[in-house]
Amino acid sequence: MNILITGGAGFLGQRLARGLLERGTLMGKPIASLTLLDVVRAPDFDDKRVRAETGDIADRSVLERCITTDTHAIFHLAAIVSGQAEADFELGMRINLDASRLLLDVCRTLGHAPRVLFTSSVAVYGGVLPDVVRDDTALNPQSSYGTQKAIAELLLCDYSRRGFVDGRVLRLPTISVRPGKPNAAASSFASGIIREPLNGERAVCPVNGSTRLWLLSPQQAIESLIAGCELDQAALGLWPVVNLPGLSVSVTDMVDALKEVAGEEVASLIDWKPDPKIEKIVGSWPGAWDVSRGEKLGLSADNSFADVIRAFRKG
Amino acid sequence: MNILITGGAGFLGQRLARGLLERGTLMGKPIASLTLLDVVRAPDFDDKRVRAETGDIADRSVLERCITTDTHAIFHLAAIVSGQAEADFELGMRINLDASRLLLDVCRTLGHAPRVLFTSSVAVYGGVLPDVVRDDTALNPQSSYGTQKAIAELLLCDYSRRGFVDGRVLRLPTISVRPGKPNAAASSFASGIIREPLNGERAVCPVNGSTRLWLLSPQQAIESLIAGCELDQAALGLWPVVNLPGLSVSVTDMVDALKEVAGEEVASLIDWKPDPKIEKIVGSWPGAWDVSRGEKLGLSADNSFADVIRAFRKG
Repeated sequence: MNILITGGAGFLGQRLARGLLERGTLMGKPIASLTLLDVVRAPDFDDKRVRAETGDIADRSVLERCITTDTHAIFHLAAIVSGQAEADFELGMRINLDASRLLLDVCRTLGHAPRVLFTSSVAVYGGVLPDVVRDDTALNPQSSYGTQKAIAELLLCDYSRRGFVDGRVLRLPTISVRPGKPNAAASSFASGIIREPLNGERAVCPVNGSTRLWLLSPQQAIESLIAGCELDQAALGLWPVVNLPGLSVSVTDMVDALKEVAGEEVASLIDWKPDPKIEKIVGSWPGAWDVSRGEKLGLSADNSFADVIRAFRKG
Repeated sequence: MNILITGGAGFLGQRLARGLLERGTLMGKPIASLTLLDVVRAPDFDDKRVRAETGDIADRSVLERCITTDTHAIFHLAAIVSGQAEADFELGMRINLDASRLLLDVCRTLGHAPRVLFTSSVAVYGGVLPDVVRDDTALNPQSSYGTQKAIAELLLCDYSRRGFVDGRVLRLPTISVRPGKPNAAASSFASGIIREPLNGERAVCPVNGSTRLWLLSPQQAIESLIAGCELDQAALGLWPVVNLPGLSVSVTDMVDALKEVAGEEVASLIDWKPDPKIEKIVGSWPGAWDVSRGEKLGLSADNSFADVIRAFRKG
């Protein structure tokens, strides 16, 4: 089992690599090699199975170097995040759309139909939405990031239907709590308002407390990625897209959970400064979606956001 | 008012050109020029306003020649039809996806946000569908043509949201009765089983009589294209896509209408020879969709399929 992770130096990519290496197998087969491709070099894993590759994922020769007829599974995580894709249209199109298509096309040309998992996002939804988004709710993204993800989904579904890849898309809730620094995602605050106060630092919350988010912890995300990759194509039927189970919480709920876990004083480190640009993007995303299909496929959400914060504190 | 029609030498393109020239105005302004771009030269219209351009629409320089800061409205009709896009994957991707994106991008680069109308199709739907497709029903295309059209829709919506174009998508029902010869569309029979018998020729029907189609006559399609182009962006709200009103008829209904208009003998010229390939594609399309939004926007369907046949006979 030879695996490629794009965005392999990123936060989720590294965690996924660690998860896979600890597990030792994927789809019932021992992992022989794990290639981590990214624009920056992935940290050293001190594991002979790991190979770090750097390069521009929108460059076909880079993908051709990393995907061969020996590649059995690809986790495509590399992306330009929502805020940045909105600010830099061409970059978002290049990485989120062109590179995703190139990746599929390299697989098509090789002809061995590897298993390919794309991650997608709440941002594919938008416009007038029901309180709980259903599997059959139309996509109407209100950001370039959401548009590019929706297009990559359609491409993967068609390449999969035609037998060019054995593909599946997992639509991820917003991941919280991410460690590290804020990033250019419009949802960056969903980690920042927990992480920074826990570190004794002030954090800005750019949206209203009533804003509802659909969340998943990093731990649960990695479990879902692996489980999603191992799903049989037949189980997915005519629609290889899965809305991953998550927690529907308001920002106020999140702050209440922070108070519960770490106390009032920590929670008081949040400064409420509405940012209309971020409110517009995040406010267009669904606060919850129907999880019955995801659960039927054996995927699950976190128990509670307080538990998510506790797990984050443990590191 | 300077107008470009891509696919301008095609059946709908020529009809649209004729409709616009007779009308003389679009969006309240006199039509100064009408460019018909296609791979083959459009026939002579003997009208000084018409300019025929030939070229590959997936070639940026061709589009740059046809779209200038003086271009006010673009009807993008050029496409590889469903059957051909399924048979030739790369050609479909090149024309239905790449050329559509190029067109939008040339407009973006020019910076004057012209009005751009894309035609889309019943084929964007597929998989498990309700009896009547709603505006909020998710797209799950089961053909490469449908996928490419769905992607072009998403691109147009994002380019429009960002103000690069003043865009709108009209999802066309299957057009029947088309004059001329059969083409490579999976739905070609929907015209052939009426047209050929009326001409005294035998026609093959490759699908079951119970197959339900969503139909629009060429006349009504042209009226809808012009009315759709003239819609204010504000009237479209957050979703510049319109499911055009049509007629929901079974193939048996169509044959009954043919009997009504032309008699039993004419209708007996149809040979029923199921073709699983065509049945699979056409069977994945919706047989009807909710038309309330389209009607509210002032768009309408034909009265009856018998009327459509009568109009076709008149020519």
